[in-house]
Amino acid sequence: MKYPEYIQKLIESFSKFPSVGPKTAERYVFYLLNQEAGQVKELASSLSSLPDAIKRCSICRTFSASDPCPICSDEKRSSEILCIVENSQDLAVIENTKQFNGRYFVISRLLNTLENIGPDQLPLRELKKIIETEKVKELIIGLNFTLEGESTALYLKKLFPGIKISRLARGLPAGSDLEYADELTLANALKYRNIL
Amino acid sequence: MKYPEYIQKLIESFSKFPSVGPKTAERYVFYLLNQEAGQVKELASSLSSLPDAIKRCSICRTFSASDPCPICSDEKRSSEILCIVENSQDLAVIENTKQFNGRYFVISRLLNTLENIGPDQLPLRELKKIIETEKVKELIIGLNFTLEGESTALYLKKLFPGIKISRLARGLPAGSDLEYADELTLANALKYRNIL
Repeated sequence: MKYPEYIQKLIESFSKFPSVGPKTAERYVFYLLNQEAGQVKELASSLSSLPDAIKRCSICRTFSASDPCPICSDEKRSSEILCIVENSQDLAVIENTKQFNGRYFVISRLLNTLENIGPDQLPLRELKKIIETEKVKELIIGLNFTLEGESTALYLKKLFPGIKISRLARGLPAGSDLEYADELTLANALKYRNIL
Repeated sequence: MKYPEYIQKLIESFSKFPSVGPKTAERYVFYLLNQEAGQVKELASSLSSLPDAIKRCSICRTFSASDPCPICSDEKRSSEILCIVENSQDLAVIENTKQFNGRYFVISRLLNTLENIGPDQLPLRELKKIIETEKVKELIIGLNFTLEGESTALYLKKLFPGIKISRLARGLPAGSDLEYADELTLANALKYRNIL
């Protein structure tokens, strides 16, 4: 049995959401059908204004309601340290630590030979421009500790030989138990041990 | 760090979806930000028309684009057998078996003492009216095999003593392995064994 077309169309749209399959999409649509009409229409109107209200910052490329974004237009932040992150969510996670007072650059994609993502698909021209105009002294690589993150980090190191490049520390996560740490984490914790 | 208000509002709306937490809601919003504006606006417009396009059928209470729904208005279906289901999704699952030619009634809620859902919160007046006007001869209880489903089934049996009440068979699921069946399933499979 097929659901009415209106329901079917929404199920298809929700199925495209990350890690949402047709069954979950169906649950979402029936959840919405059980809500007040006003609430559903409010969600529809927020969605409808999203693409116009939120754009990428023309400097750091994060999603923002203003251009430049609040971080890029904050004069109190140092533009000499630039942290490279994969996306706006990672930026928010680092920002939440309140430990970083530099600026960010959202690179959006990582090098990936399997998915055929090469250097020309990365916004490297924009990055180079910022590094030159802002006279960036240090680049912190805030990318995932995965094959893609590592290759991108190494590529950036080769691309900008003149500036200091650092990356987030590898080691044991807070509150972790040695017994359950995987070998690679433990090997890194040993290699990058801190002097007390 | 707080995201811009437009993003925050949408994250809150998506967080109310079934089994969606704030992290998943965040991923949905950033997924949408990465899509073409046209695609997001299309989703917004489908959502906006959902409450007006889809209503409950005034007879069986399922969600439908027409009233009465295609099943209730299908003259070829017997109105003497009525299958009680919890919601429109369960109705669709039974309908997909193509084994049932009667009509349905969506009860929406099940008796639940913990959540204080008593008989007066169930659409029993509507159900009674259908049973009387359509001269229903058999009521098939197509409810979940849970405490709530069972209590509702027993309550319906007491409420309509004059008509035959049956329920979906309990037993081993298709393709199942005895070794992994739980005790209750196996006990039911024994108790309700079929004569070959």
